[in-house]
Amino acid sequence: MTSERPVRIAVDAMGGDYAPSEVVKGAVEAARKGGVEILLVGDQAPVEEELKRIGGPALPIVPSEGKITEEEHPALAFRQKPRASVIVATGLVKAGRADAIVTIGSTGAAMAAATIILGLFEGLERPALGGPFLGLAPGTVVLDLGSNVDCRPSQLVSFAVLGSVFARFYLGTENPRVALLSVGAEEAKGNRQVREAIPLFRESGLNFVGNVEGMDLFTGRADVIVCDGFVGNVLVKFAEGLGAAMAGYIRKSLAGRLPDREVEELASSVWGLTNIARKTGGPLFGVNGLVVVGHGASRAEGVAGAIETARRCVELRLVEALRDELARVRERVKL
Amino acid sequence: MTSERPVRIAVDAMGGDYAPSEVVKGAVEAARKGGVEILLVGDQAPVEEELKRIGGPALPIVPSEGKITEEEHPALAFRQKPRASVIVATGLVKAGRADAIVTIGSTGAAMAAATIILGLFEGLERPALGGPFLGLAPGTVVLDLGSNVDCRPSQLVSFAVLGSVFARFYLGTENPRVALLSVGAEEAKGNRQVREAIPLFRESGLNFVGNVEGMDLFTGRADVIVCDGFVGNVLVKFAEGLGAAMAGYIRKSLAGRLPDREVEELASSVWGLTNIARKTGGPLFGVNGLVVVGHGASRAEGVAGAIETARRCVELRLVEALRDELARVRERVKL
Repeated sequence: MTSERPVRIAVDAMGGDYAPSEVVKGAVEAARKGGVEILLVGDQAPVEEELKRIGGPALPIVPSEGKITEEEHPALAFRQKPRASVIVATGLVKAGRADAIVTIGSTGAAMAAATIILGLFEGLERPALGGPFLGLAPGTVVLDLGSNVDCRPSQLVSFAVLGSVFARFYLGTENPRVALLSVGAEEAKGNRQVREAIPLFRESGLNFVGNVEGMDLFTGRADVIVCDGFVGNVLVKFAEGLGAAMAGYIRKSLAGRLPDREVEELASSVWGLTNIARKTGGPLFGVNGLVVVGHGASRAEGVAGAIETARRCVELRLVEALRDELARVRERVKL
Repeated sequence: MTSERPVRIAVDAMGGDYAPSEVVKGAVEAARKGGVEILLVGDQAPVEEELKRIGGPALPIVPSEGKITEEEHPALAFRQKPRASVIVATGLVKAGRADAIVTIGSTGAAMAAATIILGLFEGLERPALGGPFLGLAPGTVVLDLGSNVDCRPSQLVSFAVLGSVFARFYLGTENPRVALLSVGAEEAKGNRQVREAIPLFRESGLNFVGNVEGMDLFTGRADVIVCDGFVGNVLVKFAEGLGAAMAGYIRKSLAGRLPDREVEELASSVWGLTNIARKTGGPLFGVNGLVVVGHGASRAEGVAGAIETARRCVELRLVEALRDELARVRERVKL
């Protein structure tokens, strides 16, 4: 990337529940706002049609063929559909024709494309998923949120490094406090994975503040909380379920006691407090290139939010910072 | 236990944040309601004084010396304070002088006393913690909730058996559907522990319905959801934190829009939906004797609730049913 031209973003126009219409709409919104150049990647005819229907700027289309759905096995689909939108879009980043890819399609497919086409930082086995995941604690970064379900202790250190750089660069947190998610603050508590990770965290040079517990995702005791992807995935889905159930409870409890509109507003804000990642998307961590994944149910606004996230990450040179810092820590800890 | 006399319960009068006063009060309430005989176990003078102050029935006191606090290492405290209330009370069960012990003191101490004095069912390494833990899903039993942080797959089967018997006997669920908590419904997903447990679950004769995800703690897709104690503990504390944060959000959002009393009612019911176990206590699973542990912050009502839980478990012959069923499944699966 050079600083003379705006950030160029390849948007997977075929991914997501409302593709291509909402994706194209979101991309047009982002392009109108400025600061980015968009390349729409998708089946030529339907994407062109959407563009015409919206009557927006004539965004360039990079043609691809078909899409990889959530139901398909990512690696298999990768071989069977080599011209699928997410693959072509990721290829644009590899070729230097785009600075980032944004997709709200299958996360598994985005991860497979990222891993195979762009490659991972040394020492990682899969990209990590993470970021601030709760509206109730927007400054607390948690990872891994579902990608690495079986982790060696050294992988947890890598996640901590990635989360720490993200907190510093993207959220502006100075000297982020890093913690391991455990069942008690005491070092002797925790499962084997956590207990074995502690000495590595101490050696890492990270601002390691020890172990935290489940409630500390809300208490601000740490800026970066690290767990394996099994625990992270269960937590994300549990929070979503709890938020939905709470919203339902609030709707029922307040019906008739406040105006309908106010009840609905409160219920949906309660839901939103447990679902922050759905709004703006987040980067795949550990990839040699910027891949931002948003939620499949995003509408145009969510797509535009994910594009904005990607733009900021590119301008902050996030990928380079993540890679450099991980290499530095790996040197120190011998991960 | 014979059916001719009421259930006899040893109550640890020294455990909990408001001991002995709230514990004695709760025990007196339970005794007044009938159906149980109470033995108060604690330091003679303060317990006698509380009884006098309340002016209730003259409950028998079994004297003990001191208590084990949350801060102490359970096994160490066990040796240093052999006359502590929870140890003496557990001893009454071992000696056949009580049918159950109820404590709202340190869970670790109760588990140590249970393990050392009463012993565990064959094949278990520690008692398991579990039960319905969310007011939003009162019929869904989850275990282990924090005791066994590193589990072999076979232990997960044991938890499933214990949870299944509890659901059948205590909650009246016919043929409870048992599921493994994982990161996706597909068998190929999940961490190694889950993937290795699946064939054992299939052989077990349990009504195994496969894997469920974090949101399914609310969806009723299974009656018994099994996870290791690390995941369970993180979930319980996360739910508590989320409930508290939600309650705070609701207080703030509704202030001035509804009468204060109604706002407070809604906020505290929201909090309560994530904290059901605090109200009534639950048994330690896998112990050769009935030990019911309630939350340390319980007031008299919570203590009386835990006593009622214990009474029901004794009358249902829960411990015998748990032990018999686990032995049967261990025979079948060769755990």
